[in-house]
Amino acid sequence: MASDNTAEQAFLDYAAATPLDARVLNAMAPYLTERFENPSAPYARARAVRDDVERARGDIARLMGARPANVTFTAGATEANNLAFAAIDQRAHVVVDEIEHESVLACANAHPNCVVSVGPDGRVDPKRVAALVEPTTQLVSVELANGEIGTIQPVREVARQLDKIREKRLAEGSKVPLFLHTDASQAAGSLSINVTSLGANMVTLSASKVYGPKQVGLLWADDSVRLRPLVLGGGQESGVRSGTENVPGIVGFAKALELAQQGRAEESRRLAKLRDKLEGALAAEFPGMVVSGPRSRKNRLPGLLHVSFPGLEARRLVILLERRGVSVGTGSACAASRMQVSHVLDAIGLPRAVSQGSLRMTLGRPTTERQIGYAAEQIAEAVRSEMERVGLDDATMLELAGDLAVGACRRGGER
Amino acid sequence: MASDNTAEQAFLDYAAATPLDARVLNAMAPYLTERFENPSAPYARARAVRDDVERARGDIARLMGARPANVTFTAGATEANNLAFAAIDQRAHVVVDEIEHESVLACANAHPNCVVSVGPDGRVDPKRVAALVEPTTQLVSVELANGEIGTIQPVREVARQLDKIREKRLAEGSKVPLFLHTDASQAAGSLSINVTSLGANMVTLSASKVYGPKQVGLLWADDSVRLRPLVLGGGQESGVRSGTENVPGIVGFAKALELAQQGRAEESRRLAKLRDKLEGALAAEFPGMVVSGPRSRKNRLPGLLHVSFPGLEARRLVILLERRGVSVGTGSACAASRMQVSHVLDAIGLPRAVSQGSLRMTLGRPTTERQIGYAAEQIAEAVRSEMERVGLDDATMLELAGDLAVGACRRGGER
Repeated sequence: MASDNTAEQAFLDYAAATPLDARVLNAMAPYLTERFENPSAPYARARAVRDDVERARGDIARLMGARPANVTFTAGATEANNLAFAAIDQRAHVVVDEIEHESVLACANAHPNCVVSVGPDGRVDPKRVAALVEPTTQLVSVELANGEIGTIQPVREVARQLDKIREKRLAEGSKVPLFLHTDASQAAGSLSINVTSLGANMVTLSASKVYGPKQVGLLWADDSVRLRPLVLGGGQESGVRSGTENVPGIVGFAKALELAQQGRAEESRRLAKLRDKLEGALAAEFPGMVVSGPRSRKNRLPGLLHVSFPGLEARRLVILLERRGVSVGTGSACAASRMQVSHVLDAIGLPRAVSQGSLRMTLGRPTTERQIGYAAEQIAEAVRSEMERVGLDDATMLELAGDLAVGACRRGGER
Repeated sequence: MASDNTAEQAFLDYAAATPLDARVLNAMAPYLTERFENPSAPYARARAVRDDVERARGDIARLMGARPANVTFTAGATEANNLAFAAIDQRAHVVVDEIEHESVLACANAHPNCVVSVGPDGRVDPKRVAALVEPTTQLVSVELANGEIGTIQPVREVARQLDKIREKRLAEGSKVPLFLHTDASQAAGSLSINVTSLGANMVTLSASKVYGPKQVGLLWADDSVRLRPLVLGGGQESGVRSGTENVPGIVGFAKALELAQQGRAEESRRLAKLRDKLEGALAAEFPGMVVSGPRSRKNRLPGLLHVSFPGLEARRLVILLERRGVSVGTGSACAASRMQVSHVLDAIGLPRAVSQGSLRMTLGRPTTERQIGYAAEQIAEAVRSEMERVGLDDATMLELAGDLAVGACRRGGER
């Protein structure tokens, strides 16, 4: 289905979805077959299943440097993000940055809010965040890493800034809480998710981004946060999230997160190398191409490459590429399905002529060097053929890209 | 794990959880392995996955005699019930009966509400429901079948009563909507889920009660209902339920519901026969035993038997029985884990001395006649040994049960 006339394939959209790791599926398998009991039932077989759910919670907590009681399982990152916002007063002010995931932006919009702009590399300035905190602000939400352009945010530094505000509030006798939430879904395969080093009060994770099952996520919240349920009922998850537990999903999540965190240093190096190879090959071919996201490795997700071909249409490239067995994204999957121009690309100031020709390539655990070679070749051919079709030459593309182009003389500084 | 010293086993708690049917797991398998794509991604492989999700929605809609656009997938029945309540104004009055699932009761408690009492067989009187509808009532919620004592409610008749009220409101120029919601989770294996014959405006279903995966459910809502999201984000499920779709879960749900609905008439007969055998064997042995739920077959779930042994403690029986390989429930799993006395048993007026000795046996697709024979034997032995331990004889148990006992002279009429 993915390719008409070639056996070669390269799936390059692992930020949208990861396949289940076979080891994860193995861990889930008993709970998809004989161990189907409801963890709340009273007999030993069911209690053993409950124990396994709690063991999974414990394993995940350990990976986060946290206590199990602070981990609430949800149906995914979106629900976890919503749960974080439900923890503050309905009319409390919130601060978020403008390249947050749609679920965070939608939640922020249900509150009085301030949206912090980001730099051209997508980074937020922690001091700028702090400056926008008002006396009534109860929540700041900054994603650990952006899934579209790969920007890693200085969450720890934001936490430090908020500490100062908390101290000030304390000194002034204010009882308004100030929580920091970070959606670490896209980051958990590459970065530490240790809650102490992150410095946040709430952390969102998703299994489906780390080769675990779909429809499982979690919100970790420290003891200062009192979560309020979005869904009422039987009182599972300490009353915060009712409904029979997703036993196979939770067990699979624990295994997936363990594998992702154990292997993240090595895998990040491997992916960054492959990503750099892909970027290098395309940059050498198209001087008018634009690469978005931070240039510095330490601020950029290793397996992510966001490029734009000014003057071209991403949708057409996607179709040409899928015929060649290469699957690439055009941004976050949610926005892609509605064919909207991404709010992230608007936020970093990409002109529409540039952003309309944007492809997001995300490499994953199954990605090989050979696939990257093949993908580079096919992307180059597809882009060339589209340039020919619309009568665009390298010089014009370069012109459209201006000093954003990889081939442009940089005016210096990171972007 | 389930038994210490016998190979014989009988799992009799299928109302708490059903194992995945092998055919369901087969249907899910491709989506747990190679077909992992995000349905919102733009390339053909992902669009094919989206098509499969929509095909599953269509299949389920057909089984309900409904249109696909009216089906919203959720993480389970609890979320679907919450979604139904979120569709009405926050301060609108609601009417529910007192033996609803905890998720419905919890949602009702977040509104001004009226709780309708039920008869000793658990049935609601539709006229009584109608009489309690106030001018500001926007929602009535009556479960199609109760999972604890097996009572099938006259939902269609409740719908007819509400129709009259709607007509009256219309005539009076009132614009207050009046919706009927029914949680059909426990019923979908035995009863029709055709939305027209149910007559409700909203119907909740759960995959995990029909040999499908955990953490998948749906809310069907007719065109008069405008659902409001509990969770905000990427706008999946027509904006009502954001978050990447649970592809394997949804596909499995469709297969599970198809199998359950196709086979329900035959399976219901089979289960009722086995249930009657179990009931008969125990009733013959213990004249003081109390059977709860409607006596009439048409008002009672076929695979469910709720019995109480007055003067005994259900918890001890559960433990004795699990040592013999027999898993039984003590009520809804949620309440069981907290060892509360069930609100359902209080509602039907069981004295505590009776309700404390209650076991719920629910038969399922894997249940065999041999298992029922074994279970009847083991339950009888366990009850006898407990009676001996606490020094209770048949006469005293009969006395404690009063005219609720199966061996009592009935004062006539169904209970």
